[in-house]
Amino acid sequence: MKLGSLKSSESKDGQLCVVSRDLKTAVKATHVAASLREVMEKWSEKESALQKLYTDLNEGKASGAFAVKEEDFHSALPRTWLFADGSAFIYHIKLVRMARKAALPETLATVPLMYQGECGQFLAPTEDIPQRDFSHGTDFEGEVGVITDNVPMGVTPEEALKYIRLYVLINDVSLRGLIPEELAQGFGFFQSKPASALSPFAVTADELGAALKDGRIHLPLHVKYNGEFFGKANAGAMHFHFGQLIAHAAKTRNLAAGTVIGSGTVSNEEHGNGSSCLAEKRMIEQIEAGAIKTPFMKSGDTVEMQMLNEKGESIFGRIFQKVKAV
Amino acid sequence: MKLGSLKSSESKDGQLCVVSRDLKTAVKATHVAASLREVMEKWSEKESALQKLYTDLNEGKASGAFAVKEEDFHSALPRTWLFADGSAFIYHIKLVRMARKAALPETLATVPLMYQGECGQFLAPTEDIPQRDFSHGTDFEGEVGVITDNVPMGVTPEEALKYIRLYVLINDVSLRGLIPEELAQGFGFFQSKPASALSPFAVTADELGAALKDGRIHLPLHVKYNGEFFGKANAGAMHFHFGQLIAHAAKTRNLAAGTVIGSGTVSNEEHGNGSSCLAEKRMIEQIEAGAIKTPFMKSGDTVEMQMLNEKGESIFGRIFQKVKAV
Repeated sequence: MKLGSLKSSESKDGQLCVVSRDLKTAVKATHVAASLREVMEKWSEKESALQKLYTDLNEGKASGAFAVKEEDFHSALPRTWLFADGSAFIYHIKLVRMARKAALPETLATVPLMYQGECGQFLAPTEDIPQRDFSHGTDFEGEVGVITDNVPMGVTPEEALKYIRLYVLINDVSLRGLIPEELAQGFGFFQSKPASALSPFAVTADELGAALKDGRIHLPLHVKYNGEFFGKANAGAMHFHFGQLIAHAAKTRNLAAGTVIGSGTVSNEEHGNGSSCLAEKRMIEQIEAGAIKTPFMKSGDTVEMQMLNEKGESIFGRIFQKVKAV
Repeated sequence: MKLGSLKSSESKDGQLCVVSRDLKTAVKATHVAASLREVMEKWSEKESALQKLYTDLNEGKASGAFAVKEEDFHSALPRTWLFADGSAFIYHIKLVRMARKAALPETLATVPLMYQGECGQFLAPTEDIPQRDFSHGTDFEGEVGVITDNVPMGVTPEEALKYIRLYVLINDVSLRGLIPEELAQGFGFFQSKPASALSPFAVTADELGAALKDGRIHLPLHVKYNGEFFGKANAGAMHFHFGQLIAHAAKTRNLAAGTVIGSGTVSNEEHGNGSSCLAEKRMIEQIEAGAIKTPFMKSGDTVEMQMLNEKGESIFGRIFQKVKAV
């Protein structure tokens, strides 16, 4: 099934909606739970009622169904308790570290990189990305992500896969100009990772069909930059699968229901697939042509991300954001 | 006034209570707001009703007042949207970096260190600290903290002080054995910073009286380890004040109402004041006696933290936690 959160002046959690498979119609499900955040805490109790509503909606039988306008929807989960963002595409790590002349970690292939991102106020998927200072080097990062149930501390990677309830896309906004100085301090990212956006819709495993295997989504992430093709890197190239990322996050803590785990920037070694962030494109320009041509984002630049099923239909809806000077 | 959250089987946010100045009695304030998390989002709307209840309670006139049992209370704010933990005591940074033979950041005195900690499930102040593996090097860190209102991106340090609504103590649980490897990866703390605990009670500025000045709480943090004196370092020694920490956190994002900003481990250069974490005591032993004597925590070890007013009365209640192997 597919779930979303209508923007609401009443609650920052938005209003829970069930959304049709083709993303054309939706119906409020606030009689089942006020918000998706609440559903995540009571998944086993709420799932069947939502599934029933989804079936009715797809069959045109749900009363109160309305036409979806993407701009009325917030991030599928507008705010939550933990956003643990991994970096599971090793080619991305190689390119961005090359760009900032940083050494690769010795444990590159054995221990996932992970940091805690802003989780209390995701941007809406069509919300402007605020930019205070162009020198901050505003960049997008196209990612896939999962939303978990409660996960017990010490879970194994294989067991961890069983706690995934939903899948989403993520635009992890990154301020490249702030990263080198921040990482040099030793405490990791903070100012360089402001609020990110999730896709408008989160979907259960069955919506991904055969593309979901080995804890990875084997589909291209379609990225457009200022309306032009920018990337179609396949998300199946994750070095660490989602079970490994969840197990890493849960090594010393229980994970609260509603935890979002990000894949890190989707990245393929085949340069023909393009990129899912500007930093990679810039580094590839440097490697292939000897000079960086593409600047970071400036006010008015737009990025679009979506993932399509085998019929070419959007699975999660679109992230479509514009940079706006504030 | 003083506020707390009774543990509740109904909600992980607990039940909002107003607590008397002497911490002996409390009264539920769920008719004002269900939880402190909700109060933080509507501070200006809720403050006067809570203040009235506090006055009545202190005068013995609040109906429904009950005797406080600390173990019935959760962390003052059981869960929230952001825990941005600074490291504002430079002597602490010097000692712990000496301990792991790490260089001091060049911006030590000009840019605060800060990371995002687990915010979605604080431990209760009398809850056991779970320990999966003794080799993780379990340590406590006694801190002071503030809880903010919504804070606009780009706020100045002086303006930032105006958004502080409440003060708390924090036991920032740290796994020293995991820190060197984690920081070497470059992404900062994650596994090495599991769930922390806040004091049972959060207090407004007026409860701190003259001890609150220059954005710092000028009082000793009393720490006992296994029932014995361990530290009384003065929290007024913060190099960066809370306004500077908030402004650092808000440089590239708005801060959600309910954001907890931690001071980092309270630390004084006077060794006679003891320490607020084991790592410092161990390093001082190394410096003064040439060898480390104190091990990290093992199952059964206890830590107690509190801060007293000029009359010797506890301001925030006690954090009292025991390590338990799980």
